[in-house]
Amino acid sequence: MDRQAPEYIELVAQLRELATLRSCGAVLGWDEQTNLPPNGAEHRANQLSLLAGLSHDRATDPKLGELIEKLSEQVGEGNEDSVEAANVRDAKRAYSRSVKLPRNLVKELSRTATLSQQAWVEARAKKDFAAFQPWLEKVVQLKREEADALGSPTGVKYDALIEDYEPGATAAQIQEVFAPLREELVKLVAGIQASDRKPDVGILERSYPIADQETFGRSAATAIGFDFTSGRLDIAAHPFCSGIGPGDCRLTTRYDEHHFPGAFFGTLHEAGHGIYEQGLNAEQFGLACGEACSLGIHESQSRMWENLVGRSRAFWDHFYPEAQRTFPDAIGDLHIDDFCAAVNNVEPSWIRVEADEVTYNLHIMLRFELEQALLSGDLDVADVPTAWNETFHEFFGMTPTDDSLGCMQDVHWSAGLIGYFPTYALGNMYAAQFFDAAQQELGNLSEMFARGEFAPLKNWLNEKIHSQGRRYDAPKLVQKVTGESLSAAPLLNHLNTKFGMLYGL
Amino acid sequence: MDRQAPEYIELVAQLRELATLRSCGAVLGWDEQTNLPPNGAEHRANQLSLLAGLSHDRATDPKLGELIEKLSEQVGEGNEDSVEAANVRDAKRAYSRSVKLPRNLVKELSRTATLSQQAWVEARAKKDFAAFQPWLEKVVQLKREEADALGSPTGVKYDALIEDYEPGATAAQIQEVFAPLREELVKLVAGIQASDRKPDVGILERSYPIADQETFGRSAATAIGFDFTSGRLDIAAHPFCSGIGPGDCRLTTRYDEHHFPGAFFGTLHEAGHGIYEQGLNAEQFGLACGEACSLGIHESQSRMWENLVGRSRAFWDHFYPEAQRTFPDAIGDLHIDDFCAAVNNVEPSWIRVEADEVTYNLHIMLRFELEQALLSGDLDVADVPTAWNETFHEFFGMTPTDDSLGCMQDVHWSAGLIGYFPTYALGNMYAAQFFDAAQQELGNLSEMFARGEFAPLKNWLNEKIHSQGRRYDAPKLVQKVTGESLSAAPLLNHLNTKFGMLYGL
Repeated sequence: MDRQAPEYIELVAQLRELATLRSCGAVLGWDEQTNLPPNGAEHRANQLSLLAGLSHDRATDPKLGELIEKLSEQVGEGNEDSVEAANVRDAKRAYSRSVKLPRNLVKELSRTATLSQQAWVEARAKKDFAAFQPWLEKVVQLKREEADALGSPTGVKYDALIEDYEPGATAAQIQEVFAPLREELVKLVAGIQASDRKPDVGILERSYPIADQETFGRSAATAIGFDFTSGRLDIAAHPFCSGIGPGDCRLTTRYDEHHFPGAFFGTLHEAGHGIYEQGLNAEQFGLACGEACSLGIHESQSRMWENLVGRSRAFWDHFYPEAQRTFPDAIGDLHIDDFCAAVNNVEPSWIRVEADEVTYNLHIMLRFELEQALLSGDLDVADVPTAWNETFHEFFGMTPTDDSLGCMQDVHWSAGLIGYFPTYALGNMYAAQFFDAAQQELGNLSEMFARGEFAPLKNWLNEKIHSQGRRYDAPKLVQKVTGESLSAAPLLNHLNTKFGMLYGL
Repeated sequence: MDRQAPEYIELVAQLRELATLRSCGAVLGWDEQTNLPPNGAEHRANQLSLLAGLSHDRATDPKLGELIEKLSEQVGEGNEDSVEAANVRDAKRAYSRSVKLPRNLVKELSRTATLSQQAWVEARAKKDFAAFQPWLEKVVQLKREEADALGSPTGVKYDALIEDYEPGATAAQIQEVFAPLREELVKLVAGIQASDRKPDVGILERSYPIADQETFGRSAATAIGFDFTSGRLDIAAHPFCSGIGPGDCRLTTRYDEHHFPGAFFGTLHEAGHGIYEQGLNAEQFGLACGEACSLGIHESQSRMWENLVGRSRAFWDHFYPEAQRTFPDAIGDLHIDDFCAAVNNVEPSWIRVEADEVTYNLHIMLRFELEQALLSGDLDVADVPTAWNETFHEFFGMTPTDDSLGCMQDVHWSAGLIGYFPTYALGNMYAAQFFDAAQQELGNLSEMFARGEFAPLKNWLNEKIHSQGRRYDAPKLVQKVTGESLSAAPLLNHLNTKFGMLYGL
C-alpha cells in the first residue's frame, strides 16, 4: 500500500476528522472536571451526548467501512509491517467494533456518564452511597448492554469491555498473571509489617503550603520532560491526564496542605502520562500509529515516572535540596534518609491513588474481582459497599470506615469505565520491565537521576514506545522493546530489592 | 400554530441540537482565550473549523428548510404574535441567511479567526502591526466574500455583516444617529476639558492587590445579581462574556495591580452581559425566544450595570465602605467624593474598553468609519495604522504612541467581527433609555442602590428584556419597554446632567 494512494489519503482525512471531533469532546470532558459551574451539568451532558452521537455516526459510516475494506485487501505480504498497514488494520478493528453499538446506546452511555459523575462527586462528598446507587445501577445496566452488543470470542461480558482499554487481553489471562503476583505481594507486605523499621510518615503531614507544592510539582514535571508550552496543570477532584490533540495535553492534580505525597506523586504520575501523549507522532494524529498503544502501556509510563523514578533515592539526591528550600518549615532540618523512607512507607491504606508501590496492586485486584462480578450479575450494585468492605478486609486486614474511603473513592465506575482497572496493574509490570531494558541500554540510570539528568530515559521512551503509537499491540511492543514477553518478575524483583533494603528484610 | 404540533416539536428538536452543537464551539472558544497552551493553537483551529462546518451543515439542511417553510405557512392572523410564531420567523431568517454561505467559506472563516486571534495576541504584545497585517488582510478578504455571498437590500457590503449583530440595522441609519450624538459629545468633552475641576486619577493607580481586586469584583458581581453557581469569572487578554448554555455563563476580566477601574468596571460590564444570559428562558434554549435580542440590546445591559449603576454615586454610597476595607492602603483615608470623581474622570485616552462614558462613543465612531472603509475597499489593511492614528487625532487631539494602544487594541477584527462595533454605541443609547423607563416604573433607583438593593432593577430587566429573548426585534423591544423609539436624548441627558454636576459646567 502506498501512503500517496488516493484511498489511503481519504482514509487518513476521515480518521483525522473523526479524531478531531472526538477531541472536542475531550476539551468538554476536561472542562467538566476542572471548570464547569454546578448548574451547567445538564447542558454539558447534552453537549457530550450529541458529540458522542456525531462521532459514532462517522465511526460507523458505511462509506468508511467500504474504504477500509478496499484498503485491507491491499495489505499483504511485503507491506504488512508498514505504518500504513498498521493504520488500516487498526481502523478495521475499530470500525467493526463501532458498528456493533446502537447509536442510542452510545448517546445514552455518554449522557449517563456525565450525569453520573456529577452525582458521584456529590455523593462522595456526602459519603452517601445510596444517592449514588441508582446512577451506578444505570451505568452497570448500560455497560452490560454494551458488552452484549459487542460480544467477545470468550463469551465473557467483561472481556468485551477490556478490549477498549487493553486490546486482546481477557479476564482469564489477567487472572493468571495476577494470582502469583498477589501471592508474592502478600508475602512482601507481611514481611514489611513484621519489620521493626517504621518510617515516620508524620513528617509528610506537616504544613506544605499549597502554592509552594504547585511550584515544586511544576518544576519536577518540567525537569522530567513535560512541556508546559504544550500543556497545563490544573486542579480536579480526581487527578487525570487528558491528551486533547497535538500541542495540547492537560494534567490535573489535587492539593492538601497536610499531605505532601498526594499532589506531588500525583503530578509526576500524570506528567508521565503527559510525556507519553506529547511523545506521540503528531503527523499520525487520528491514526493508530499516532495514538497510545493501550492503557496498560500508558500506565506503565505514569507509574515509571511516579515510582521507579520519583520514589527512588537517586531522584531525591537531586531534588531534595530544592524540596528543602521550598518547604523549609516542614523538612529544612530533616535528613534525606528519613524523607525517602517516609515517601516509600508501605502500609495498608484506604485510597488506591495514594497507595504505596507494594499494596497498590492489591487495590487493583479487589476492583478487578468486583467489577467482573457486577458485569456477570453475581454482584448487585446495592451490595457493592458490603462486598467492597469484605474483600478489602480480606486483602488488607481492615475495613473502610465510610464509602468515600471505600467503594466510592474512584471516578471510574461512575464514568462507565468498567474493565479499565486491571490496566493499572499491567502498567506496573510493563513499567518495571521497560525500566530494566532502558537501564541495560543506557547504563546506570540512578547516576543520571542523581545528576538531574532525566532526558536520556525520556528520549529512550520517546523513541522506543511513544513514537511507535499503536503500530504494535501491547504484547508485541513489550517483546520488541525488552526482548521478552510480559512477566511479573521485573516488578517483583524491583519491589523485593527496594523494600528489602528499606525495611532490612 | 400549536406548540404540540409534531412539526413544531421537530423544529424545536433540530434547532436545539444545532444550538447545542454551536455551544460546544463556545466552550472551545472560551477555553482558547483562557486556557489553551500556546502550541495547541493549530489543533484548536482545526477543531473549531470542523464544528463550524458541522453546524453549517445542520443550519443549511434542506429538510430543515422544508420544515420551516411548512411551519411558516401556518403563521398568520391570530397567531402571529405568539412565541411559536416568533421562533418560526426567526428560524426562517437564519436559515435563508445560512444557505447563502458556502461551506468552505464558513470553515475557512472559523479557522482563520482562531489562528488570526493567536497572531493578534502575539503581535499586540510585541506592538508589531506588520506581523498581524497578513492575518488581518485574510480576515478582511474573507469577510468581503462573506458580505458578497450574503448580499443586502442596500447593496452595501457592511450592511450584510451588521445583520449578524443588529438585525435590521444599516450603516446609513447608524450614521444618522451617530452624527448628532458626536456633535453633542464633542461639545461636552470640550466643556469638561475647559473646566478647572481635575479629578486626581493617580489614586486609582495606587497598589490594589490583584487577589483583593478579584474578591471585591466577585462580591460586586454577585450583589448586582450574577449567579456564580451558573457561571465563572476568569482571566483573559481581552475581557468577554460567553453564554455557553443553560446554567453555564462565563465572564473574563484582566487585572493590573496599579489600575483599579480596568478589572472592576470590566467585571461589572461582563456581569451585565452575564445577567442577561442567565435571564434568558432556558426552556426556549436554541430558539429565538431563548436567545438574546441583538448585540446592541446585549450591550445595553453591560453598559447599564457598568456605568449607569456602577459609576453612580449611589452605587458607591453602598460599596465604598467595603472598598475601603478591601484596599485600606490605597483608599482607607480617601473621601468618597474624590473616589467618585476619579472613576468618572473624562479625558481622551487610548483604550476603548477603559474609556470614560463620554469619550467612549467617539472610540466606536472611529472604528465604525474605518471598518466601513476596509470593507468597501476604500482603505487598505496596510494603511490601517496611519488611518487610525489620523482619525484618532481628529477625534481626540492626540496620536497613539504605538499600535497596541491604537489599531491593535481590540480582538474584534482578528476574530472576524466586522460590523460589531456600532452595537456598543447603540447599547449606550438603549441603556439610558431603558434605565429611564425602569426609574419611572420602579421609583428612585439611586435610593435603592445606596441601600445595596439591586434586585428590583435586575428583576425588572429579567422580566421586560431578558426573558423575552428575540421575540421582538430591537426597535420593537425598545418601543414596547419604553413606549418610545430609539433616541439619543436619554443618553445625552444622562451625560450632560451627571458630568455637568461633576465638572460644575
